Amino acid sequence: MANIFIVFEGVDGSGKTTQLNLLNKYLSEQNIPTVMTREPGGTPVGEKIRELLLDRRFAEMQERAEALLYAAARAQLVAQVIRPGLAAGKVVLCDRYLDSSLAYQGYGRGMDTAFLAGINELATGGLRPDLTVLLDIPPREGLQRSRQDRPADRLESESLAFYQRVRSGYLALARQNPAAYLVLDARQPVQQLHTAICQAVGGLLGG
Amino acid sequence: MANIFIVFEGVDGSGKTTQLNLLNKYLSEQNIPTVMTREPGGTPVGEKIRELLLDRRFAEMQERAEALLYAAARAQLVAQVIRPGLAAGKVVLCDRYLDSSLAYQGYGRGMDTAFLAGINELATGGLRPDLTVLLDIPPREGLQRSRQDRPADRLESESLAFYQRVRSGYLALARQNPAAYLVLDARQPVQQLHTAICQAVGGLLGG
Repeated sequence: MANIFIVFEGVDGSGKTTQLNLLNKYLSEQNIPTVMTREPGGTPVGEKIRELLLDRRFAEMQERAEALLYAAARAQLVAQVIRPGLAAGKVVLCDRYLDSSLAYQGYGRGMDTAFLAGINELATGGLRPDLTVLLDIPPREGLQRSRQDRPADRLESESLAFYQRVRSGYLALARQNPAAYLVLDARQPVQQLHTAICQAVGGLLGG
Repeated sequence: MANIFIVFEGVDGSGKTTQLNLLNKYLSEQNIPTVMTREPGGTPVGEKIRELLLDRRFAEMQERAEALLYAAARAQLVAQVIRPGLAAGKVVLCDRYLDSSLAYQGYGRGMDTAFLAGINELATGGLRPDLTVLLDIPPREGLQRSRQDRPADRLESESLAFYQRVRSGYLALARQNPAAYLVLDARQPVQQLHTAICQAVGGLLGG
């Protein structure tokens, strides 16, 4: 049984998705069963919520409504994908989770973190990752990397100062519980990052 | 200033919407400014959430996700419609609110009422109606009335026993705070119900 829950976090353009795919490939080659998913989304209900969250027409969306929509997608993902994956003895790899709400809405926009923690505790039933891989990058470099191939969506159309607060928030969350985080400088070469992630995950798998 | 928040509650087919429209017409004729809205929905974001909640393709929707979606629509409605309406000195008339979540998901499906109360307290910032008009009707009669002109949506495709628990839940909520509820037998003639509602609202308006 390898029931371990691993989350990838970081600002846009940090290379989360690339590293998540590489780790998934690596684990599959070791015959370790995995489930790969993402937030918001990862389920049909969640993908519909994701559409709504990223839709630029809903500029009037209130921050509490937005936070509750993320929590709804998260509740669906936990119940439909993450808990069943863990119960089946798989490694669950998730692109963003709870920390994204805390970093973006809490640290980034200054929302009440008690509100965010409260709704997410209720949404997830308290389920936390065994390991969070935080790919840290200065926001300017991250944004340049993420915007090369498409126009910015609603969430990306925020100021650089916002992304700096998000980055600081992520680092603060990691400092609060260092044993559960692997913080990496995302500007390192892809293969070097992958090696560091495999080592940390290997430790969790008892290898 | 007539900043009063009035909610209409009841099982499907209880005649809520008819009475809400009649009250709105009556108040408008008295030159009392009103805002009329409904849940889930009442805002562009909320209407999109409503579509998702009523979509029969999402039968796998988890109950926590569903409750969080209702709370998200409610948070948007409170911030975008209800609070601004009250601040502008209007009578806000709303078709369903918090009690619908408690009656349908709590009493009807047996969800943890502490969870429901918690997310809704966060979503609404504690805003409660000044008056809830509860149109009480035996579910069998209500369902017959509501289904005459269209097929059942996802929520209506529940058993009669479920609707009986919902009805009991509404009555229990009214008993907990009788001063804030007007409970009416919805089988009375439309005009008689309307008169009773106008009297109660007149009392609130100091008329």
